[in-house]
Amino acid sequence: MAVPVDPKLKIVKGDAGYVLEDVPHLADYLSDLPTYPNPLQTNPAYSVVRQYFVHEDDTVTQKIVVHKDSPRGTHFRRAGPRQKVYFEADEVHACIVTCGGLCPGLNTVIREIVCGLYYMYGVTKVLGIEGGYSGFYSRNTIDLTPRIVNDIHKRGGTILGTSRGGHDTSKIVDSIHDRGINQVYIIGGDGTQRGASAIFEEVRRRGLKVAVAGVPKTIDNDIPVIDRSFGFDTAVEEAQRAINAAHVEAESMDNGIGLVKLMGRYSGFIAMYATLASRDVDCCLIPESPFFLEGRGGLFDFIEKRLKEIGHMVLVIAEGAGQDLLSESLQSMNQQDASGNKLLKDVGLWISQRIKDHFAREQKMSINLKYIDPTYMIRAIPSNAADNVYCTLLAQSAVHGAMAGFAGFVVGPVNGRHSYIPFNHITETQNQVVITDRMWARLLSSTNQPSFLNPKDVGKIQKEEEPPTQLLEGENCKDSNFATKDILI
Amino acid sequence: MAVPVDPKLKIVKGDAGYVLEDVPHLADYLSDLPTYPNPLQTNPAYSVVRQYFVHEDDTVTQKIVVHKDSPRGTHFRRAGPRQKVYFEADEVHACIVTCGGLCPGLNTVIREIVCGLYYMYGVTKVLGIEGGYSGFYSRNTIDLTPRIVNDIHKRGGTILGTSRGGHDTSKIVDSIHDRGINQVYIIGGDGTQRGASAIFEEVRRRGLKVAVAGVPKTIDNDIPVIDRSFGFDTAVEEAQRAINAAHVEAESMDNGIGLVKLMGRYSGFIAMYATLASRDVDCCLIPESPFFLEGRGGLFDFIEKRLKEIGHMVLVIAEGAGQDLLSESLQSMNQQDASGNKLLKDVGLWISQRIKDHFAREQKMSINLKYIDPTYMIRAIPSNAADNVYCTLLAQSAVHGAMAGFAGFVVGPVNGRHSYIPFNHITETQNQVVITDRMWARLLSSTNQPSFLNPKDVGKIQKEEEPPTQLLEGENCKDSNFATKDILI
Amino acid sequence: MAVPVDPKLKIVKGDAGYVLEDVPHLADYLSDLPTYPNPLQTNPAYSVVRQYFVHEDDTVTQKIVVHKDSPRGTHFRRAGPRQKVYFEADEVHACIVTCGGLCPGLNTVIREIVCGLYYMYGVTKVLGIEGGYSGFYSRNTIDLTPRIVNDIHKRGGTILGTSRGGHDTSKIVDSIHDRGINQVYIIGGDGTQRGASAIFEEVRRRGLKVAVAGVPKTIDNDIPVIDRSFGFDTAVEEAQRAINAAHVEAESMDNGIGLVKLMGRYSGFIAMYATLASRDVDCCLIPESPFFLEGRGGLFDFIEKRLKEIGHMVLVIAEGAGQDLLSESLQSMNQQDASGNKLLKDVGLWISQRIKDHFAREQKMSINLKYIDPTYMIRAIPSNAADNVYCTLLAQSAVHGAMAGFAGFVVGPVNGRHSYIPFNHITETQNQVVITDRMWARLLSSTNQPSFLNPKDVGKIQKEEEPPTQLLEGENCKDSNFATKDILI
Amino acid sequence: MAVPVDPKLKIVKGDAGYVLEDVPHLADYLSDLPTYPNPLQTNPAYSVVRQYFVHEDDTVTQKIVVHKDSPRGTHFRRAGPRQKVYFEADEVHACIVTCGGLCPGLNTVIREIVCGLYYMYGVTKVLGIEGGYSGFYSRNTIDLTPRIVNDIHKRGGTILGTSRGGHDTSKIVDSIHDRGINQVYIIGGDGTQRGASAIFEEVRRRGLKVAVAGVPKTIDNDIPVIDRSFGFDTAVEEAQRAINAAHVEAESMDNGIGLVKLMGRYSGFIAMYATLASRDVDCCLIPESPFFLEGRGGLFDFIEKRLKEIGHMVLVIAEGAGQDLLSESLQSMNQQDASGNKLLKDVGLWISQRIKDHFAREQKMSINLKYIDPTYMIRAIPSNAADNVYCTLLAQSAVHGAMAGFAGFVVGPVNGRHSYIPFNHITETQNQVVITDRMWARLLSSTNQPSFLNPKDVGKIQKEEEPPTQLLEGENCKDSNFATKDILI
Repeated sequence: MAVPVDPKLKIVKGDAGYVLEDVPHLADYLSDLPTYPNPLQTNPAYSVVRQYFVHEDDTVTQKIVVHKDSPRGTHFRRAGPRQKVYFEADEVHACIVTCGGLCPGLNTVIREIVCGLYYMYGVTKVLGIEGGYSGFYSRNTIDLTPRIVNDIHKRGGTILGTSRGGHDTSKIVDSIHDRGINQVYIIGGDGTQRGASAIFEEVRRRGLKVAVAGVPKTIDNDIPVIDRSFGFDTAVEEAQRAINAAHVEAESMDNGIGLVKLMGRYSGFIAMYATLASRDVDCCLIPESPFFLEGRGGLFDFIEKRLKEIGHMVLVIAEGAGQDLLSESLQSMNQQDASGNKLLKDVGLWISQRIKDHFAREQKMSINLKYIDPTYMIRAIPSNAADNVYCTLLAQSAVHGAMAGFAGFVVGPVNGRHSYIPFNHITETQNQVVITDRMWARLLSSTNQPSFLNPKDVGKIQKEEEPPTQLLEGENCKDSNFATKDILI
Repeated sequence: MAVPVDPKLKIVKGDAGYVLEDVPHLADYLSDLPTYPNPLQTNPAYSVVRQYFVHEDDTVTQKIVVHKDSPRGTHFRRAGPRQKVYFEADEVHACIVTCGGLCPGLNTVIREIVCGLYYMYGVTKVLGIEGGYSGFYSRNTIDLTPRIVNDIHKRGGTILGTSRGGHDTSKIVDSIHDRGINQVYIIGGDGTQRGASAIFEEVRRRGLKVAVAGVPKTIDNDIPVIDRSFGFDTAVEEAQRAINAAHVEAESMDNGIGLVKLMGRYSGFIAMYATLASRDVDCCLIPESPFFLEGRGGLFDFIEKRLKEIGHMVLVIAEGAGQDLLSESLQSMNQQDASGNKLLKDVGLWISQRIKDHFAREQKMSINLKYIDPTYMIRAIPSNAADNVYCTLLAQSAVHGAMAGFAGFVVGPVNGRHSYIPFNHITETQNQVVITDRMWARLLSSTNQPSFLNPKDVGKIQKEEEPPTQLLEGENCKDSNFATKDILI
Repeated sequence: MAVPVDPKLKIVKGDAGYVLEDVPHLADYLSDLPTYPNPLQTNPAYSVVRQYFVHEDDTVTQKIVVHKDSPRGTHFRRAGPRQKVYFEADEVHACIVTCGGLCPGLNTVIREIVCGLYYMYGVTKVLGIEGGYSGFYSRNTIDLTPRIVNDIHKRGGTILGTSRGGHDTSKIVDSIHDRGINQVYIIGGDGTQRGASAIFEEVRRRGLKVAVAGVPKTIDNDIPVIDRSFGFDTAVEEAQRAINAAHVEAESMDNGIGLVKLMGRYSGFIAMYATLASRDVDCCLIPESPFFLEGRGGLFDFIEKRLKEIGHMVLVIAEGAGQDLLSESLQSMNQQDASGNKLLKDVGLWISQRIKDHFAREQKMSINLKYIDPTYMIRAIPSNAADNVYCTLLAQSAVHGAMAGFAGFVVGPVNGRHSYIPFNHITETQNQVVITDRMWARLLSSTNQPSFLNPKDVGKIQKEEEPPTQLLEGENCKDSNFATKDILI
Repeated sequence: MAVPVDPKLKIVKGDAGYVLEDVPHLADYLSDLPTYPNPLQTNPAYSVVRQYFVHEDDTVTQKIVVHKDSPRGTHFRRAGPRQKVYFEADEVHACIVTCGGLCPGLNTVIREIVCGLYYMYGVTKVLGIEGGYSGFYSRNTIDLTPRIVNDIHKRGGTILGTSRGGHDTSKIVDSIHDRGINQVYIIGGDGTQRGASAIFEEVRRRGLKVAVAGVPKTIDNDIPVIDRSFGFDTAVEEAQRAINAAHVEAESMDNGIGLVKLMGRYSGFIAMYATLASRDVDCCLIPESPFFLEGRGGLFDFIEKRLKEIGHMVLVIAEGAGQDLLSESLQSMNQQDASGNKLLKDVGLWISQRIKDHFAREQKMSINLKYIDPTYMIRAIPSNAADNVYCTLLAQSAVHGAMAGFAGFVVGPVNGRHSYIPFNHITETQNQVVITDRMWARLLSSTNQPSFLNPKDVGKIQKEEEPPTQLLEGENCKDSNFATKDILI
């Protein structure tokens, strides 16, 4: 029989190792809440659908069990419309805020929350908070209607504006309360979702009937648990353009090196998938895979070898790669930026200089290095078709959850099933490329680059790397989320 | 205990309703085949990988069991490299052929089979068969090397050329035998895979050591069992361009109608996802959802209503939609084209004319209809980044399978895990949009178009539509394969 | 001494064969008009400019004299700001209307008229007439401000809407008068400019202080006198996409024929330049160059020859090519559409059928023809950078002219100098590709197609073709206006 | 009567101030050269052309005379095919070399020289010199045939490779002589053309029958005399992408500044036209227009003002702008790079830092600056349709000239007519934006930025700036060459 072990975390255990990490509900702390039939029942568009509402027992497994005796593992509550809702259309006063850096798809998520609330639930009062969290108490707001948001998915950026930091939980909840807002949609990265979690805790503490729904955003695709983050697909696509340019530059010059820095502070997903998709890259460096510059088997050595072989090369580096080396050089790390992430020095400019210096000093060969940083050109484009559809599902998922009375949660697909996930799962760790998985091996094979590891390191890494979302069989590796989920073909 | 029920189909049954639909292996009909250690074991790129080889018992479930008592259902053999291979590098003489219509990604698949054989297994003899099946006996061939295929993934089409039909099993197997080919990679649609199946049967009958690997291809995404087909993502992206143009044309004219015909003979996946991604479409017509033109609640009625409301509209129609209506008009169907598909009359031109005639006859309003058929402009573009990565996995999966001695199979991801699937599963049915699923309801809601169904039909459809890949819970619907797998958020 | 020869046409003759074809001015028929200093004199942006205002005697020659004794020929009044203007900022009530088919750049011209009036002359009252000419009396209007038009140049189509026909001079002038409009900006093709001319005549007849400025629009680039029409550059660029697709389709099929229909009712400029830019085309058919289908040296013969040589081909046909042949087949011509142009049957579908029929009948070879009609996908895109700058100059030129009191004129560059041109020069003829010029020869050479002319025809054509804008030396040929003006390199 | 004044410079004077700056001819220093009829006479593609060959007296005027009494001024020899050629097809051994930085269109020029020689003149021996000038004596060469160059215009970069410097006249002419080369096509910028001039002088000194034809290349469009340089149109188009991204980033952040650095060491044409085309830019800084940072009316002042007004701004800076300021800061200038251009420090990174420092120091407002440097992404793309046609004309012009025996010349359009220009005209000065012309005023007006000039400067600039190619009337200003030639509308 299922027994909750921790009321706050709302963990429910079941037979055979089944664990449900549930999300809080308004009914957990407010009693006698009235419920209403879901208006989708009478929506003509949905009239043909067989079994429209999510069953209250539906959960999504984080683990795809392969061996018959392994425990059933962690589950999340299934996302989707419920038979009963906890808000009447007229009663809802929603707001939307976007925080952190730009990411393709922000406007699509905004659009679809507004349109989802309006067309599915008849909600007309949606407020846009301008300029990120601080907009709750210091900025203007705009009324969001289907007409206003109609074309915004074709534009990059966010019509609401954004900012880093600016989070003052108490003032934000004051503002929510004062404005009579009862549904808060928060689109942002892990720092932002930690803020959302704090807002929800304060809301619960004050006993307010307010649902706080987070839509996780990171162009880097480093959010744990969920399959992929919106904008990632678009970013990988657009990154091809920079890699192509680097390739053309490199090929046209004697000993030409095209160097592209791509996004990825703590994870190299964009760099890895852009490299795999392009097939023009000779070396891809990511935060997860250590490397060294000097000496036998180092980067300089490899560059020299490749240039001698084919006369040119393309190097892709994630912005967070080689931080230890950079740190040694600079000894100026550990600052915190406003959103709480480490302020990383520009590794692209740094490594460009190091490579130039090396070959100038060695006088072995004269190189032609061209450095391309397409970051802001990638971030600012509109989302592609795949991300548009994906953002639509995320937004609708969030709307269904808030209407159903779930009070504090993040939305996202888990093994292909949209789910409601507790904040702590999203904010406590970051997802990373598992360099002992086959996708990274596939990359090494395609670029024909060395692993930059010595045998001792290999053994150590193979032991250490045991990500929480991964079975021994490599079943659920997160690095497989781009376009297809498999890594073990 | 597992017992094979049918040696030819190689179905293995297990406990609790477990069924493995296995694929034939060379060892099934050839005895005393020598095996060799997989050369990947000593490949430096793969040295860091933990547990590289697929376990011989690994299978992939077609069904994600939700209720604890439901039978475990159909499984497929997991794709990926095996510990032992049945070919030595020097012994392999592979060939590749592409058949049927163009699809983004053909060149990427070709490239990755050649590079996969070369870089993973050291295979150097790969022959390109030119011009489809008939190329086996009537056309030139070209030697394919990593250098020759290096840049082809950036070009549309297929460097091998393609054709429909031209299949003569006996002559093809003669040609395979005469040339000493022992691995045959066949990229094509359901008709092509039926041919591949026949080739394999003949190969087995003659007792040849030849592996026949099919890479299923259909831009329409209507192949059953597998999650999605390559090129589909690219096609949906490119279709946006035509829909945008139709929208601009429609908006600029009084009573402007922009009409776009998209691919989809028997299934409306491209039309549905392009509509969902674009959010500019007022009506989407697909083969799976019947509609009618005249009278109350019909298409003409809806067009008139929408034009009166907002002055313009965009209509997307899949090429196979409304075939019954078209057939009534034309009474000239049932011809077979060379690949065995029905030769469908152009529904876009037909419906354009019907709409124009209706409004001319009715004299209620003067309309401005602009018809766009982007079919060949979509088919001919290079694959995007997502499809490039996907094609790479398909190609490597096929190479691993052939090297491992699997003798007749199709590759493709099933619930996100790449698998080896028996030919009959791919060729016997077509995948279709399930109009009683939520994704179609989501489309109806986004376009605000009527379902064009009367209540009686609805009940009938809800009963009838029980596709083999779908549980009652709507878990595994194939219409969820674009960008995210879920339909029941 | 210069003497006007015809007050209405305002032709001024000078020494050495100098002819100025001047445009009417408000002062021609209204006396005692007050003038004001041009406000640009105090505009900070223009403070650095040396000699800002156009001298009243500045004219632009249509002919670049090469032989010292040839007459000086036709001149037009130079466009640009004048020292004195005939309207005060507060007095101006402008309107803008767009007519005819879509063309890239319409929104840019609208934007720049609004912004030019506002920022250069302080004019705030600008009305957008919706839906073409008929919008003057039957439709809504919208107020146009710099804020409203700020981003419209990034969108295709026209925010004002457009239509063909709907021209009732008297009702339009009534509407102009009733609304107090005194500057009318009319963007449209030759039919539209004929309407503009009639409006101006009626305005002059009634003695109204109203300036009528035409901005000639035709994606086909077939407007005489001016160097090129806006949108043409964008259209040629976009046409490459369709030609590329046709090339990919053709190359991938045995005896593949990629057939692309491009815009060009009466002139083949888009087809010619798209062919020259692409270098993938094997045959380009335009209205100016007759061809025949059957028999030796005919199109079918050429197709067969090319397919035998290289196995595939790309054919580009302008929509107005081969009308005599089509007419023979159909005998159903000479209808007039609403704008007065002949309604041409779709030559692309027609010739596709003829080619298919021929090869089916002859049974010599089995062909694979793919027909692409990108017309609406080309028309609907936003203008490219070159057209954006060009549209800006056209719009500002029109604004300067109206403010300076010119009463009825068309704007456009003549030999690279923006000019004010009388309506009759624009509306009486159409510009055409001169097939005895070197640019067409260059095309024939690049495609290696036959001229489809017999020797007798050649002599006849060489004698007949003596277009009004062309000297014997081939100096001023209009087919040279794309990107560079020269044809005789 | 015309009299040559300087045999080496070959200046011919005529009546009424007519000056022909002619180019040297093989017959100037080699006697008894045989001539041959131009094979184009019997080329079927050219059979319809009326008057195909350029008359030997045809010249192109650099000045468009406006006042009847002004001198006729400088003329250049008209480019194009001549009745007689100085090489037989079999005799020609041509070579092509590309030097300096990448520029869209290089491959198109290469392609069209090869195809022009082959299809127009029957020349089959064309050698590609790899890696710039030094390739003549230190690198491999490749045979160039129409088949090899067939698709290269669709790729960026140069298939021949390129480099800066590496010029050793004597060794190059030795190499030319040793290989039996008699036509040398040199594609490169002003430094490269100085090298070409030296090569020609040495060739003439040695009395070799070798034609040296230069195709001027600079993405910056700063080559004097000619109307525009190839690749410029493409570069302006592609620069829009970066400006759009900067705009999206700026709009999405509070006090967002999007800063884009564009090419232009000594001239701001790309920055100016990209700004005019985009209409999203708030400030454009170019080398020709001095500015200052601090104090009233300075850049910081303007940025602060604009941010207060609208909350965000886009700043475009040409790479050579503000060099005096940068120099003051760095005091580290005047190095020479290999091609002889000054090595400029990166002004984009420098000004980003200065702006950030200023606002950090002032503490008035917190800004969000995003810096984009799209240089290599722009340089590396393939040429667009307009540049493709233009490159074709340049290449054919060069081929006609060399075949006609002109011995040392540069090709390019002058006032829209392709011409043969002496090397010294191209290499002695650079073309610049004339900031007292109306195009720059138009830019100031569109961005609404200050001129950053004080009244005293203005007077000084207006007096000083009197470019050699410009009449008082502003007729022939070079800044008008983008898409339309006019500046004085």
